[in-house]
Amino acid sequence: MRLRHKPWAGEKLGQYPQYAIADPETHKGNWAEVFGNPNPIHIEVGTGKGQFVTEMARANPDINYIGIELYDSVIITALDRLIEAELPNVKLLNVNAKDLKEYFEKGDVDRVYLNFSDPWPKNRHEKRRLTYKDFLKLYEEILVDEGEIHFKTDNQGLFEYSLQSFSHYGLLLTYLSLDLHKSEFEGNIMTEYEEKFSAKGQRIYRCEVKYRS
Amino acid sequence: MRLRHKPWAGEKLGQYPQYAIADPETHKGNWAEVFGNPNPIHIEVGTGKGQFVTEMARANPDINYIGIELYDSVIITALDRLIEAELPNVKLLNVNAKDLKEYFEKGDVDRVYLNFSDPWPKNRHEKRRLTYKDFLKLYEEILVDEGEIHFKTDNQGLFEYSLQSFSHYGLLLTYLSLDLHKSEFEGNIMTEYEEKFSAKGQRIYRCEVKYRS
Repeated sequence: MRLRHKPWAGEKLGQYPQYAIADPETHKGNWAEVFGNPNPIHIEVGTGKGQFVTEMARANPDINYIGIELYDSVIITALDRLIEAELPNVKLLNVNAKDLKEYFEKGDVDRVYLNFSDPWPKNRHEKRRLTYKDFLKLYEEILVDEGEIHFKTDNQGLFEYSLQSFSHYGLLLTYLSLDLHKSEFEGNIMTEYEEKFSAKGQRIYRCEVKYRS
Repeated sequence: MRLRHKPWAGEKLGQYPQYAIADPETHKGNWAEVFGNPNPIHIEVGTGKGQFVTEMARANPDINYIGIELYDSVIITALDRLIEAELPNVKLLNVNAKDLKEYFEKGDVDRVYLNFSDPWPKNRHEKRRLTYKDFLKLYEEILVDEGEIHFKTDNQGLFEYSLQSFSHYGLLLTYLSLDLHKSEFEGNIMTEYEEKFSAKGQRIYRCEVKYRS
């Protein structure tokens, strides 16, 4: 299901097939062909307006990035960024994260980024959180062995929940900062949301976890 | 090795054998006899001036507490507290945590508390941190199966390090608060240090981890 809050968005996405992949299911197991090279593929689940994935692609030309975003109301902004940036190593998918296995097979993806994901604070919405165990299983099914998730958020409750969820799933915690912007972490690329909230003095939490082989 | 900065401390501890256990190695595997009942035993490693262990013992009469403290300069204050409190379910050991296996055998201990442990921030002192892997192994060797460690600190660096150390050791993270005093956690007993630092607006971090069976 694609959400078309901007009825013209679908048409515009269709006009830029070099950035917005129209038929991602046809590239399953063969993303090197889309990018024209066999470089590692990092996906951002919930890419929003695309600042993170665009700036990461600019900073790391040897990595291929795919921004995944359900809402066309924001992915359209991400598309505008890519049209402007003219980067060969970043693509957008306007699809639902629940369906990732339709577009990627085991080993297609080297790393998953989750940035400022919707916290879904109510207990009854736990299953919608992108760090819920069913999503961790989904990522495992498309990642390489010992694949990684890099996660950051300003939401304390979501971060507390996620670290426990990672632990229960058996993921290995390889990096942790409880105040990213005051840490020694280098090369942080901010999302739009991160810029706004860190400017208000809000702490940013960040971790990296790895699937055990 | 016991550190006697107060030369009279040893003598005073010796005068209260009902609180300060003089010959802990003789009770290994048989702590129920010391307490006169088979209740679960929770130890605090680095008990300092003893407020936590004393108040926990008062609040939980069905649990037996043992406060372990190397430095006689502070354990003497803990002893004064116990003399005042007259609680039957709390004892002190003036020993080095490195030697825990001399005093406890596998299954003697149900839970380990680590409160505001020395952060040893320099990398070269990592091995001294009470959440270093060698200590996690030591606790495992005296705990019951699926035994727990409950850990709190105001030190962000130590907490970040410890969550990673727990993860690498394979411990299961079952509780996490990144701001204990603003959380819904009930029945928190504060240490002297915690009272002082939380009054300054410092965040307290807290977690519970469990050994996997």
